[in-house]
Amino acid sequence: MAERRRVDYNIHRDVLDEEIVDDCRFNCLDVLFFCSCSGPRLKKSILSTVPVVSWLPRYPVRENALGDLISGISVGIMQLPQGMAYALLASVPAVYGLYSSFYPVLIYFFFGTSKHISVGTYAVMSVMIGGVTERLAPDSNFLENVTGEAIINTTLRDAERIKVAAAVTFMSGIFQVLLGLVQFGFVVTYLSEPLVRGYTTGAAIHVIVSQLKYTFGINPTRFSGPLALIYTVLEIGSLLPETNLGTLVVSAVSIVCLILAKELNTYLAKWLPVPIPVELIAIIVATLISWQVNLNAKYGIDVVGDIPSGLQPPALPDISLFSQVIGDAFAISVVGYGLAISLGRIFALKYGYKVDSNQELIALGLSNTFGGIFQCFAISCSMSRSMVQVSTGGKTQVAGALSALVILIITLWIGQLFEDLPKSVLAAIIYVNLQGIMKQFTDIPALWRSNWIDMVIWIVTFILTVLLNPDLGLAASIAFALLTIIFRTQLPTYSLLGQISDTDIYKPLNSYEEVKPVPDVVVFRSSATLYFANAEMYQEALGRKTGIDITKILAVKQKLEAKRKRVEKKQLKKAQKEAKKQAKENGDLQVDVEHTEMAGVAVIDIEPDRDPSLPRAIILDLSPVNFLDTVAVKTLKNIKKDYGEIGIDVVLTGCQSGVVHNLETGGFFNEKVTKCCVFSSIHDAVLHCQCSCETERHQQDKVSICFVNAYAALQQD
Amino acid sequence: MAERRRVDYNIHRDVLDEEIVDDCRFNCLDVLFFCSCSGPRLKKSILSTVPVVSWLPRYPVRENALGDLISGISVGIMQLPQGMAYALLASVPAVYGLYSSFYPVLIYFFFGTSKHISVGTYAVMSVMIGGVTERLAPDSNFLENVTGEAIINTTLRDAERIKVAAAVTFMSGIFQVLLGLVQFGFVVTYLSEPLVRGYTTGAAIHVIVSQLKYTFGINPTRFSGPLALIYTVLEIGSLLPETNLGTLVVSAVSIVCLILAKELNTYLAKWLPVPIPVELIAIIVATLISWQVNLNAKYGIDVVGDIPSGLQPPALPDISLFSQVIGDAFAISVVGYGLAISLGRIFALKYGYKVDSNQELIALGLSNTFGGIFQCFAISCSMSRSMVQVSTGGKTQVAGALSALVILIITLWIGQLFEDLPKSVLAAIIYVNLQGIMKQFTDIPALWRSNWIDMVIWIVTFILTVLLNPDLGLAASIAFALLTIIFRTQLPTYSLLGQISDTDIYKPLNSYEEVKPVPDVVVFRSSATLYFANAEMYQEALGRKTGIDITKILAVKQKLEAKRKRVEKKQLKKAQKEAKKQAKENGDLQVDVEHTEMAGVAVIDIEPDRDPSLPRAIILDLSPVNFLDTVAVKTLKNIKKDYGEIGIDVVLTGCQSGVVHNLETGGFFNEKVTKCCVFSSIHDAVLHCQCSCETERHQQDKVSICFVNAYAALQQD
Repeated sequence: MAERRRVDYNIHRDVLDEEIVDDCRFNCLDVLFFCSCSGPRLKKSILSTVPVVSWLPRYPVRENALGDLISGISVGIMQLPQGMAYALLASVPAVYGLYSSFYPVLIYFFFGTSKHISVGTYAVMSVMIGGVTERLAPDSNFLENVTGEAIINTTLRDAERIKVAAAVTFMSGIFQVLLGLVQFGFVVTYLSEPLVRGYTTGAAIHVIVSQLKYTFGINPTRFSGPLALIYTVLEIGSLLPETNLGTLVVSAVSIVCLILAKELNTYLAKWLPVPIPVELIAIIVATLISWQVNLNAKYGIDVVGDIPSGLQPPALPDISLFSQVIGDAFAISVVGYGLAISLGRIFALKYGYKVDSNQELIALGLSNTFGGIFQCFAISCSMSRSMVQVSTGGKTQVAGALSALVILIITLWIGQLFEDLPKSVLAAIIYVNLQGIMKQFTDIPALWRSNWIDMVIWIVTFILTVLLNPDLGLAASIAFALLTIIFRTQLPTYSLLGQISDTDIYKPLNSYEEVKPVPDVVVFRSSATLYFANAEMYQEALGRKTGIDITKILAVKQKLEAKRKRVEKKQLKKAQKEAKKQAKENGDLQVDVEHTEMAGVAVIDIEPDRDPSLPRAIILDLSPVNFLDTVAVKTLKNIKKDYGEIGIDVVLTGCQSGVVHNLETGGFFNEKVTKCCVFSSIHDAVLHCQCSCETERHQQDKVSICFVNAYAALQQD
Repeated sequence: MAERRRVDYNIHRDVLDEEIVDDCRFNCLDVLFFCSCSGPRLKKSILSTVPVVSWLPRYPVRENALGDLISGISVGIMQLPQGMAYALLASVPAVYGLYSSFYPVLIYFFFGTSKHISVGTYAVMSVMIGGVTERLAPDSNFLENVTGEAIINTTLRDAERIKVAAAVTFMSGIFQVLLGLVQFGFVVTYLSEPLVRGYTTGAAIHVIVSQLKYTFGINPTRFSGPLALIYTVLEIGSLLPETNLGTLVVSAVSIVCLILAKELNTYLAKWLPVPIPVELIAIIVATLISWQVNLNAKYGIDVVGDIPSGLQPPALPDISLFSQVIGDAFAISVVGYGLAISLGRIFALKYGYKVDSNQELIALGLSNTFGGIFQCFAISCSMSRSMVQVSTGGKTQVAGALSALVILIITLWIGQLFEDLPKSVLAAIIYVNLQGIMKQFTDIPALWRSNWIDMVIWIVTFILTVLLNPDLGLAASIAFALLTIIFRTQLPTYSLLGQISDTDIYKPLNSYEEVKPVPDVVVFRSSATLYFANAEMYQEALGRKTGIDITKILAVKQKLEAKRKRVEKKQLKKAQKEAKKQAKENGDLQVDVEHTEMAGVAVIDIEPDRDPSLPRAIILDLSPVNFLDTVAVKTLKNIKKDYGEIGIDVVLTGCQSGVVHNLETGGFFNEKVTKCCVFSSIHDAVLHCQCSCETERHQQDKVSICFVNAYAALQQD
């Protein structure tokens, strides 16, 4: 591919400007499509709304069943400890994490289109829910005066928190379904990769901070609003002397064990068909020890506590809470969707199928809506579980459904065995699961090398998320990311282009050696689109780059014009006087007056018009322009007019049809300025300018001769 | 110019790709400029900070003095009624409007660079000030219980309002000076013309509503915060039955007279050297009538009241108010600057000189800062006064200084004569002065024809300003205007390009008749720059436009690949078995196994790779791209990889050097993908693709022959 081909091509054609191009434009006949509702259409619409109907009957049992079974069980086993741990994050009792790993997963099986993501509890979502529950149902609301001491009524508090979590989950589900129905899946395009990664890293910091209390066995007050994280950290710092040593030891041991086990897992990955369920082992061992040693009673180590067996009856969420959680619900719905779809797309691309972004939105929405009815908290999908699901041979959504079954069995019969599990072990599981997210800090140097603006987006998103909390932080980060787009178009590179010798290719003059400026013609380009925020800079840059101080020249011209008129008047008077005098002598007054008048005009008219150092024409290359607003059109109009006045022809090139349309409606063209000044390529424009320069030179020569003759005539008088 | 030239040009050159172009790039030597402080530099810096030092000594007395004198007196005469009227808007006693027409105007004379704008009180600024003063010092704060009736202590109230106005003015001045010092003059670029016009129109509505109380002689409570205007209008509506008929009659008469007189003025403009000072006549006549008839006592018509003669001593503003007015002060500083600079630029362009946007900012800032110290309210410049200043022959800032002198004389000796002037006459002057702004409503149809997005900006700005008040409305409008830029890049036109026969020009296929698609090559272009918010759409549009369902093809390919492997294995086994069998018979095992293996590979290898309906190459024209972020680079990388896998070569063209740099740092290039796939023009890329297609075809023919031979060999076995 690297061999260099020499080409000869002969071009024999008209110089193309927009007017010629217009002539061969199609008469657009708008073709209308009519919608009709018919049997097959209805069937198709059902199939796309409930995808399971279309793929389950064609499920290749022999090929996929075994993989899905193993994968389902593995994921189910992972869901157990993660669900319980993330319930802690959401500030609800552990068993609700199990519910959240069951109902939504099952619903997703029916409606989801991604075959490989593991839907369920996720740290970022849980910490966002936790923010809401602790804001609306803080400990301080449930203080009871028992024998002179203020004690928190945890039963009441937890009941309230469950209600809040269910309400916000239900609402976020409704939001997702609505957004899906109006085909708003595209909102996720605002969540660019640097933003999502910066955001999840920032959210992870919130996760860690909210778990510190379990690790140290302390009980700080929860803060809400901006800077809550800072206040919480300060509070925890001040409470550190009260650390429960037993809890800290349990935490440290479990963190170390988990990290070692995970490393071992990675190391053994090649040989094992299914990874060792380290987290399951951890909670089983921890529960056994805790139960045997009676950690809770002896060392005051906080344990999970009461886990009711069986499921909860469905209940509509508390409508009175909706108005208080509407903002959080919206943020949760967007974040949950954004995380799920980006992961879903990665797998879809890898395994060659398609995820329908709007259907995904509806599927997640229904999962959350139903989840909310069954007292679950909001779900999304987890990277680590999805990786396990894929690596253990999961091929379809069936794996997810099976994992839900596993959770159901655990919830019904085994769950209550974990009542003695220390919460600090769950916190340890959360920390260890955040490892992947924490590795995202290495994005910073990588982005620094590849695109520093994206690095700024990453860092700002991270900081905003940490300082403003995940909900407000997300909105602020998106606003910032959009602003960077504006800033980028506000600081364009302006350059003069020259011709690569003997070609029709034009490149910036200052960066290439072989690029030569075109004599008498200036080619100017801005690297960015032209609109109100940079239109003035464009005009200034044009003056700076071409070295033409247009205001000064115009002022000089005006003065000269005024002088010319004065001189003209004076000369005319003088000439007329003389002519009269002569006429008195000769008697042929009329002819002479006309003569002198013409000569007087000719003397001054040419002088101020052209400075030989000025170029004859300016070509504005508008190829990077995406659209023009009225300010931009006005700017171009001014440039054309001002430079035209000092005898420089301004022509445009590289306009897309939308841009030409903008020029047209913006009133750029009139009787004098036609579409003939818009060329299809820089080379066309250069050829045109060179031709017209020559013509002009001829004309000027003629004028000069005129002038010399006239002057001579005047002298002779 | 409209004649059409036929050109012949022969191009004989290498096909240019970025790698070749790179070879002739300059080794950039950064030239460093050293700053040094020297005598001339210091002088220049002083001259640019206090422009009066440089232009006053060279003031051409003979040429300009007369014009400036007449113009100064005319403007001064206009300042008198306007100043008093706008003081009403700002909710401070009328005399403070006179102060505001004196101090700031004098300061501007020393520091300003625009020769033609008339700095001083302005309706929009005054109404913004009024919003602050009435919010921080509402009538309700000054109710006094006099003989069982609640009466407002106007003396205390006015004193407080003057303090508030001075504080906010001082602060806005400080903001302007600071912004000017950090060279932030460019912020004004965000105030595009449609935005400023929509904004001033919206502010005019506020002005009118705030004056209705003087016209009807009623006393509604002032509302603040969003939607305040709506509440105020409703309140005024409910108070209409209490209208003071005398006030209404005075208002109606003065409005009608003023409008007629202004029309007369326009009509007589050709013959009169100086316009009739209708407003001055109006207030003199109104004062005389009011004094003679004793309107205040007889009909309860509200008059201006006490006008102290002489000036106020300077006083530092109340620092404790600063924190309450910081937001308003910032809004006022930006708006005041925006209005002044846009008018200043218009005159500068017309008369061929330059206004320095940062120096203007400093000049206005100092005017406001000093104004704040002398109890003025914030100023900007007035369109109507500036027009009079120019049309009566004003040539320099001297006219402004003279107008300030006129105001000084009035303030010192004549002002107190106007104590009997009815406020409703001042309100009438305000209404009539808003005529020009109200005509801006005709922008809507004009913008509809030229650029509907700018029309939307106009209307949204107007609505936001009306609903959210001038301060918050401005911020919201700027945010909206910036968002439109994002939206425009999010809804690009995607098109396939074709060649205009026999040329090197490429245009969209669907809109031109003579444009023919290039055989075997697809040229694709998006009308907008490529970044995170539209990168996915780009990928989708490419698939849709080319009709290539890349996910499906890749999936099919994967399946075929799997099948191939199975078949291969099977065949290999079978062949080996047969070979063994043969070997047992012939004894030459080794050779045959190799043979069959090769044949087996050849059978399947070609088949899934190429579909004859697919193009051989895709050319992505990136000329409208301003910059690429990491998401965009990744998207391009994916396109290159995916299409490459199904045998379609993807090449780029029209990349600016910044874009190539982004590709480079973003990791687009590697050992396989070099800069050879980036071409300087579409035509180069097409030529390259056509050449390589032919080469490939040759190669494929060879492979096909290979395959036929191999297959034949296999069959023979």
